Amino acid sequence: MVLASRVEAALQAAVDRADTPAAPPLLAKALRYAVFPGGARVRPMLCLAVAQACGDDQPAISDAAAAAIELMHCASLVHDDLPCFDNAATRRGKPSVHSMYGEPIALLAGDALIVMAIERLALAGAVAPLRLAPLIGTIARGVGAPHGIVAGQAWESEPNPELELYHQAKTGALFVAATMSGAIAAGADAGPWRALGETLGAAYQVADDLLDAVQSAECGKPVGQDALLERPSAVATHGIKGALAQLNALVEQAVDSVPPCEGAQDMRALVRLTAMRLAPKQLARSAA
Amino acid sequence: MVLASRVEAALQAAVDRADTPAAPPLLAKALRYAVFPGGARVRPMLCLAVAQACGDDQPAISDAAAAAIELMHCASLVHDDLPCFDNAATRRGKPSVHSMYGEPIALLAGDALIVMAIERLALAGAVAPLRLAPLIGTIARGVGAPHGIVAGQAWESEPNPELELYHQAKTGALFVAATMSGAIAAGADAGPWRALGETLGAAYQVADDLLDAVQSAECGKPVGQDALLERPSAVATHGIKGALAQLNALVEQAVDSVPPCEGAQDMRALVRLTAMRLAPKQLARSAA
Repeated sequence: MVLASRVEAALQAAVDRADTPAAPPLLAKALRYAVFPGGARVRPMLCLAVAQACGDDQPAISDAAAAAIELMHCASLVHDDLPCFDNAATRRGKPSVHSMYGEPIALLAGDALIVMAIERLALAGAVAPLRLAPLIGTIARGVGAPHGIVAGQAWESEPNPELELYHQAKTGALFVAATMSGAIAAGADAGPWRALGETLGAAYQVADDLLDAVQSAECGKPVGQDALLERPSAVATHGIKGALAQLNALVEQAVDSVPPCEGAQDMRALVRLTAMRLAPKQLARSAA
Repeated sequence: MVLASRVEAALQAAVDRADTPAAPPLLAKALRYAVFPGGARVRPMLCLAVAQACGDDQPAISDAAAAAIELMHCASLVHDDLPCFDNAATRRGKPSVHSMYGEPIALLAGDALIVMAIERLALAGAVAPLRLAPLIGTIARGVGAPHGIVAGQAWESEPNPELELYHQAKTGALFVAATMSGAIAAGADAGPWRALGETLGAAYQVADDLLDAVQSAECGKPVGQDALLERPSAVATHGIKGALAQLNALVEQAVDSVPPCEGAQDMRALVRLTAMRLAPKQLARSAA
């Protein structure tokens, strides 16, 4: 099965499990709405690609890791869109979860998605119990405090955020969790895969800053939010041209960071492909 | 070490880990504030008591389970107090987390506490890897959708909530997770401990309804919220006297449900003690 289908199937299985006759109906609907249809699924695809590059000897646990990574990402989107953060009425071209189901259900949906992510891992863990603790530890580190995406969001409430810690936590941490958990799921050493996650995370952050700055409505998200909310951004620091150069350098660095393994060549191709999809379309065209 | 000290030490270790120089300072402060000083710590004490009754052969994993249960409970309190739910300015006699640190940090603190709970289990899991998957699965079921406390809260957004499902999820689920995870942490069969969790959860719900109704300010929480928010309640259904009789019957049922084990006698004593602390003080006096 191609990676994209595996990701969708794993997510479907997770969401279906929460949607039973005993479930509160609005929450069950909101959970499905928050996960489907998805965006590019960059993080879970990356996780599965690393698992494959490392042999993927237990596909069920790789699938669970990929699903967990994406469910954590979806949870963060639902919570980030809430009125007390971005107050975003839309996401991926449709009403945000709280616009659709109200703030209480959106808040609970985010919580439930975090728990669902972990439950996925526990359910799959039986096939490889020794991998479960490092897998959950790695994903928890990418999400929680002090280094994960929740901490990253919390830096926005600080009067003087530490910019590097902010970016690493806000975006880098979940990319690191994606590459490292892919390796752990396949029984490989996760350490050598950290750099790839870090570099792609940094690239993604720069791409996101660019996207925000160039007033594109492609992703269905209100634009110019960084400037509006006075958030630190690569574009504010380096200008659009400088940020684009930085993005290209990070992508080359990411390609070079793929550790020696059976599937290294495929992995490098995937990194380039992912990177091409990162850059805002107008800029990719003008830079071509 | 007595149970209460073990619970506090386990929670301290969890919170300390999120409070490093690299952590966003407000979030780190809010996490500590949300966990300390605590309430009665009923759920983690119950979890540890069951672990002891089952032999407690791996205290580190029992401590982690107890801490995880309480951290999940703290997360739910922080989120339940937010403006879109109870809009509670105070909790346990001091400003609620969002009153103190603002809504964004409170929302993130709840998220971080959920992740912290799971990370605790993963960190301790190395000593007994085969117990980790059922432990995490059991606690996740007590928290998430469709049956956990998050689902319980979501029933409050339904026009016609299923009362039994609502109460089981809102309160019972985490008590069930507490007793069952205590057994699993000690390598015992969790099944026989489900009834104790269910019954104590039901008793706690009735006690909470009574507390809310009798306008007590003991717990530092605004009172009469159930009636105010038109939430289903045992008092609304059975009156105060009826609810008190129901509470007493549930406590007897809980005592009877303790399964045969080495520490059964101690366990029954603890259940009675917990129950005595459940009933609102004025009612306990008037019923004495």
